[in-house]
Amino acid sequence: METLAAYKAHLREIGKLNSALTLLQWDQRTCLPPKGHEARAETIGKLAKIVFELGTADKLGRYLEKLEAEDDLSLEDRASVRVVGKDYRRHKAIPPSLFERFAVARSRSESAWEKARAASDFQSFQPHLEEIVDFARRFAEYYGYKENPYDALIEGFEPGMTGREVRGVMAPLRERLVPFLKQLLAEGARPDTSFLRGSFSADRQRALSLRALGAMGYDFAAGRLDTAVHPFTSSTGPNDVRVTTRFVENDLLSSLYSSLHEGGHALYDQGISPELQWTGLDEGASFGIHESQSRLWENMIGRSLPFWTFFRPILTQVFPELSSPSADALWRAVNVVEPSLIRVEADEVTYNLHIMLRFELEDGLINGKIAVADLPDLWRDAMGRYLGVTPTDDASGVLQDVHWSAGLFGYFPSYMLGNLYAAQLFATLQEETPDLDARIARGDFALLRGWLQDRVHHFGKVHEPKELVKRVTGKEPDSAYFLSYITRKYSEVYRLAERG
Amino acid sequence: METLAAYKAHLREIGKLNSALTLLQWDQRTCLPPKGHEARAETIGKLAKIVFELGTADKLGRYLEKLEAEDDLSLEDRASVRVVGKDYRRHKAIPPSLFERFAVARSRSESAWEKARAASDFQSFQPHLEEIVDFARRFAEYYGYKENPYDALIEGFEPGMTGREVRGVMAPLRERLVPFLKQLLAEGARPDTSFLRGSFSADRQRALSLRALGAMGYDFAAGRLDTAVHPFTSSTGPNDVRVTTRFVENDLLSSLYSSLHEGGHALYDQGISPELQWTGLDEGASFGIHESQSRLWENMIGRSLPFWTFFRPILTQVFPELSSPSADALWRAVNVVEPSLIRVEADEVTYNLHIMLRFELEDGLINGKIAVADLPDLWRDAMGRYLGVTPTDDASGVLQDVHWSAGLFGYFPSYMLGNLYAAQLFATLQEETPDLDARIARGDFALLRGWLQDRVHHFGKVHEPKELVKRVTGKEPDSAYFLSYITRKYSEVYRLAERG
Repeated sequence: METLAAYKAHLREIGKLNSALTLLQWDQRTCLPPKGHEARAETIGKLAKIVFELGTADKLGRYLEKLEAEDDLSLEDRASVRVVGKDYRRHKAIPPSLFERFAVARSRSESAWEKARAASDFQSFQPHLEEIVDFARRFAEYYGYKENPYDALIEGFEPGMTGREVRGVMAPLRERLVPFLKQLLAEGARPDTSFLRGSFSADRQRALSLRALGAMGYDFAAGRLDTAVHPFTSSTGPNDVRVTTRFVENDLLSSLYSSLHEGGHALYDQGISPELQWTGLDEGASFGIHESQSRLWENMIGRSLPFWTFFRPILTQVFPELSSPSADALWRAVNVVEPSLIRVEADEVTYNLHIMLRFELEDGLINGKIAVADLPDLWRDAMGRYLGVTPTDDASGVLQDVHWSAGLFGYFPSYMLGNLYAAQLFATLQEETPDLDARIARGDFALLRGWLQDRVHHFGKVHEPKELVKRVTGKEPDSAYFLSYITRKYSEVYRLAERG
Repeated sequence: METLAAYKAHLREIGKLNSALTLLQWDQRTCLPPKGHEARAETIGKLAKIVFELGTADKLGRYLEKLEAEDDLSLEDRASVRVVGKDYRRHKAIPPSLFERFAVARSRSESAWEKARAASDFQSFQPHLEEIVDFARRFAEYYGYKENPYDALIEGFEPGMTGREVRGVMAPLRERLVPFLKQLLAEGARPDTSFLRGSFSADRQRALSLRALGAMGYDFAAGRLDTAVHPFTSSTGPNDVRVTTRFVENDLLSSLYSSLHEGGHALYDQGISPELQWTGLDEGASFGIHESQSRLWENMIGRSLPFWTFFRPILTQVFPELSSPSADALWRAVNVVEPSLIRVEADEVTYNLHIMLRFELEDGLINGKIAVADLPDLWRDAMGRYLGVTPTDDASGVLQDVHWSAGLFGYFPSYMLGNLYAAQLFATLQEETPDLDARIARGDFALLRGWLQDRVHHFGKVHEPKELVKRVTGKEPDSAYFLSYITRKYSEVYRLAERG
């Protein structure tokens, strides 16, 4: 197996340079002084070019061809060949000259989007978005698909998943969530959140985030917490996984929940088997599976009553001014439901409705059934139907997300799938762990973390998302778990049963 | 001039990757979590290999050959060809297999040194050092030299300088400093330093360092201050120059003077002409010239009476407990002279004596006149003669510096030359600026900084160190300036005149 050794050595070279790239990008968003950005972009560009060249090298193509014909590869080696081979072919599928033109158009489109959003002026962005949609459609043709060109784009974020499947899990959500939201707002008892008003220093917010991350079992000897305008997690391998958060002075929950969310991502990356480092498998199974881990910690744990039973004394230690509300009151307050215009501020009940809207528009755009010019109206219309709120300008409507300006079509479904996977995994975990709530209530997360690591994190990209979910839960991805979780929890938070 | 364009493009590629390497190394010393070091070393190794390959590419050799024959290159392009060509030939001179063996031996030697120093056990380190000295002697033969193999090594740090010249400027220093030190200690009035005792929080020390760096004119939009065990400055270009310091709770001066020192290095790197970035000339003229800038700010400015006239109100603002001592008392206290065993803790008067000792031993080692086994005794003997103190163990003697374990022979002279260059540059600056003291006393550093930038920083590596000193001061490097500065200043600090 000389080929296998040469193949692995080649992936290690790529992996090391990717680690360098990741660090350069982490630094760009956390440490880099303002004047350093121009030169940094050039350095990143140069390194990215080397990585791209190594990832599309003919040599790699030959290794893949030979290894794909091998029968006796280990599970991991077969997975590596699958994952690397898929990326190789997707990269090779796009003619370099087309990709170069796209890179230029994307850069212009991103700047145009920034200006358009600031001025709430969709028209100035429209021609750029038309160009980008056109590129995305051409890419889909080059990548290939069976049924729907949109599938070829979803594949880049959620391997093995199709638009038809997303639509399948989405239908019951729409059917159930839209009326449930109306019921909550009409009949429910909105939690009191008044005691969360105040001014909270960044230092103390930071201390609270550190306590939360520590309790989760985030390994600070293999990571660190920094601040960033848009919080993110960055990993160069299981031994260096960095989280970021941001501190909003009058919003204590913003940094805490962002830390729990990023902490969930980070536990995933810290939990990937070290043996997978630089093999092409040292990442999460998909964007959706990664998001399932962040949402599980942020919402299913972090917004649960047992969590607040455990965390309330820590909160009041750091913020003595918050000593009055009980664990129950805190739990209700962090679960307030508020239909809003902005996806990233959405609560658990409304979040997926934001995604549905985007999914439908993307699907239409890529299939040529929706014209870019019609997006603002379609957006307003869907917001009204799903959430009962209507943006009065495009900045808080169709221009709010960066994704489309950068050509990231097919990404949004992963946000929704993350919530569904999380609920499905959590249901299995609860079934297997009758005393889970009691453990959480005393801050004992070891079993929970170990379970997630053994069943999910450990494998990196070895299994495709659907396969992974089925291995762990015994079932195909199904939105029933999420619906049951949401309706049960929010009926309690909003005291629907008591009232009904 | 197609060759020139291709040559420059090649250097830009190297430059960008070197910027990535610099950032990886900065992060390694400031941010990297403990468990991340192993993978980081591999990433750095991979990137360093690519940079080395590009820097020794045959293509580059052909460009250099053609450009060296060109008559009409600009001053900067000629300098680039000189500097890059020299590095190219030095790298090519060493057979790759020898260099690889050296890299392995160095890595072993560095670990052995760490253990040996911790145990104060020279014998366990001796065979490693013998091996490293042997490599250094072979390298010197490969590099080539006219008179003294040691010259070939000095050249790597101080281009155009020889052992003979270093000996030339050193002789008057030894002759004058050894008796002057004795006189100071015997007849001088040791300054009172008792008021500097106390406990000073890292936060306040940091605030003070930020004030000092701000006053110097360090551009925080093109840099930042972090902490590191061994403070250093890191530059990926004039728009991203980062300084570090460390906070010792009971030693306020340690962080302040380390910040002034690194700030001096940083002003140099921020002041290099942006047009030189990634041309091979975007560094200081030499290690010695670089050190001249750090020592000038640390000592000639930062340990002057005018500086303390300006800085005392800032100090007492941050540390109200230090309100009693006058500017004069503070100035004297920061200039206390104390012969000590450790170079990095040495004051201005004794520092160069530490270097002399190392210079003489290095010269002997590389010329085969001194055996490694004799170093501990020779060290003790010289310490007694020059400084009047004798180490009782090797940890505070011959094992104190990391340099030799890493094969860095020829580096030490630059530390001394830095002090001499600084004094010579400063003498010229004073001559041209009669009101310099008054400006410093009111915290107006703009003219001083501008002068250094115009005369020194701006040029990067365009001029060799001796040439640069001559351009600015009109004279060859001469130790008379330093001697005059030291004897005048310390006679005052120690009130020799008043007493004598």
